[in-house]
Amino acid sequence: MSEAAILERIRKLAETRNAAVVRGIGDDCAVVRPNLNTDLVFTTDFLIEDRHFRLAEQSAVAIGHRALARSLSDLAAMGSQPVFCMVSLALAPRLTGRWLSGFYRGLIRLADEFGMALAGGDLSQAEKVVADVMCCGKVPRGKALLRSGARPGDVVYVTGKLGRPWTLRPVPRIAEGISLRRVATAAMDISDGLSLDLRRLCLESGVSAELESAAIPIFRGATLERALHGGEDYELVFTTRPRTRTRFIRVGVIGRGRPGTVLLDGKPLRAGGFDHFRETRS
Amino acid sequence: MSEAAILERIRKLAETRNAAVVRGIGDDCAVVRPNLNTDLVFTTDFLIEDRHFRLAEQSAVAIGHRALARSLSDLAAMGSQPVFCMVSLALAPRLTGRWLSGFYRGLIRLADEFGMALAGGDLSQAEKVVADVMCCGKVPRGKALLRSGARPGDVVYVTGKLGRPWTLRPVPRIAEGISLRRVATAAMDISDGLSLDLRRLCLESGVSAELESAAIPIFRGATLERALHGGEDYELVFTTRPRTRTRFIRVGVIGRGRPGTVLLDGKPLRAGGFDHFRETRS
Repeated sequence: MSEAAILERIRKLAETRNAAVVRGIGDDCAVVRPNLNTDLVFTTDFLIEDRHFRLAEQSAVAIGHRALARSLSDLAAMGSQPVFCMVSLALAPRLTGRWLSGFYRGLIRLADEFGMALAGGDLSQAEKVVADVMCCGKVPRGKALLRSGARPGDVVYVTGKLGRPWTLRPVPRIAEGISLRRVATAAMDISDGLSLDLRRLCLESGVSAELESAAIPIFRGATLERALHGGEDYELVFTTRPRTRTRFIRVGVIGRGRPGTVLLDGKPLRAGGFDHFRETRS
Repeated sequence: MSEAAILERIRKLAETRNAAVVRGIGDDCAVVRPNLNTDLVFTTDFLIEDRHFRLAEQSAVAIGHRALARSLSDLAAMGSQPVFCMVSLALAPRLTGRWLSGFYRGLIRLADEFGMALAGGDLSQAEKVVADVMCCGKVPRGKALLRSGARPGDVVYVTGKLGRPWTLRPVPRIAEGISLRRVATAAMDISDGLSLDLRRLCLESGVSAELESAAIPIFRGATLERALHGGEDYELVFTTRPRTRTRFIRVGVIGRGRPGTVLLDGKPLRAGGFDHFRETRS
């Protein structure tokens, strides 16, 4: 199949629309018209064959869903509303038929749920599938949730149970993130495991954190170890001032220890999550 | 080297700034504050080892330069001013030292030339180098140059000589693109060869084009064949109303033939450029 024919097929699949996208697929660039008093947030995430998934083990639809979910989870962590995405996909010519359609169906179905346009991307040939998905979200001016706002005395929360099995289709916590705009002092998503991601939040905020093992909400069938170090949770970890009320799950407090230190029941917790250049997923 | 250490090194290299980027590398997303009455344009381009370059033949600096130049050329085609880029890079662990630094130096040096921030990205492991660079540019509201505005009777121009050797470091035609905002009816960049890219412009505009071989400006040492079908030109092709004056090179006119047809001296010109799913680069 020629590139033009493939692109035409993607363009037809991408009927999803967002009013901010003035011009989508079909030109050198997508054209986006931002609202007044709005900040835009941007993130991009790879999903790579034999690194993040195996072709034989997951359907094309599930892989397309996951490729977008990873980036959407970053939008959730900023408290933003999804606007559009761009999808770069490299794959072998033998996959440009049904597999490619399935990939885009899975991705676009999730985009539709959040009123998000597929505005463009790139297509190339490669031996292994490489998807790189860029997402743009919007947030009222100055209201984006950052990693850097946690202060000693703040309370640490997570939005849901940790240690999900990898087989489930993750749903990014967009609504939860938006609801945190007025209450969270800092937030990020848990994509590489709570132990590693909370450490990153603490580093950016220049603080430490103390978790209580009894408070960690564990997904049915998972262990505490997996809940702490697993990396497919797509939940958010966030902090609030001590007296703020939220409907989420309190797991610890922010302290004045060495920046980036995370304690569990008073003892240092190793950051055992997923480092993309060390094979440390537990 | 750990991912955190690599990211910290990139963050230090990325000192380039743009006032619109409120928050760059270091959070879940970059935060961008658009100007009033501005449209934003977005594009993303792959640069893949053994597909678009060979590691042994080009320096890391040249590859970083080219990875950004490809996307910048799309910004030029829209008549936009660069604002920021996001860089997704997958590579083998053995390349995370000097090679990675060289890649970012080459990329950031070019970004600096255009006052563009490196605002974020992703980093992963892969057997072959895959870079995916997303660029954002800005343009006064409603002034983006599209492919779809060419009308019969319009004149076709290119911004420079075609058929460049691949070894030269391309400089995207940003200033030229901005100068075309008031004069061009349609524009795009020549990244896959004039014959194929002009065909794409004609398809989007629903028109045909007639080129004169004697008018095609040929790069020193190149052939007409290469000037028509080569794919490393980084020049722009654009159309204007008949009486518009420009300082660029007139190569033909827009006609009423079957949409997408390109004639050369009255005879159909095959679209011989680079199709990413057929090996047709001539």
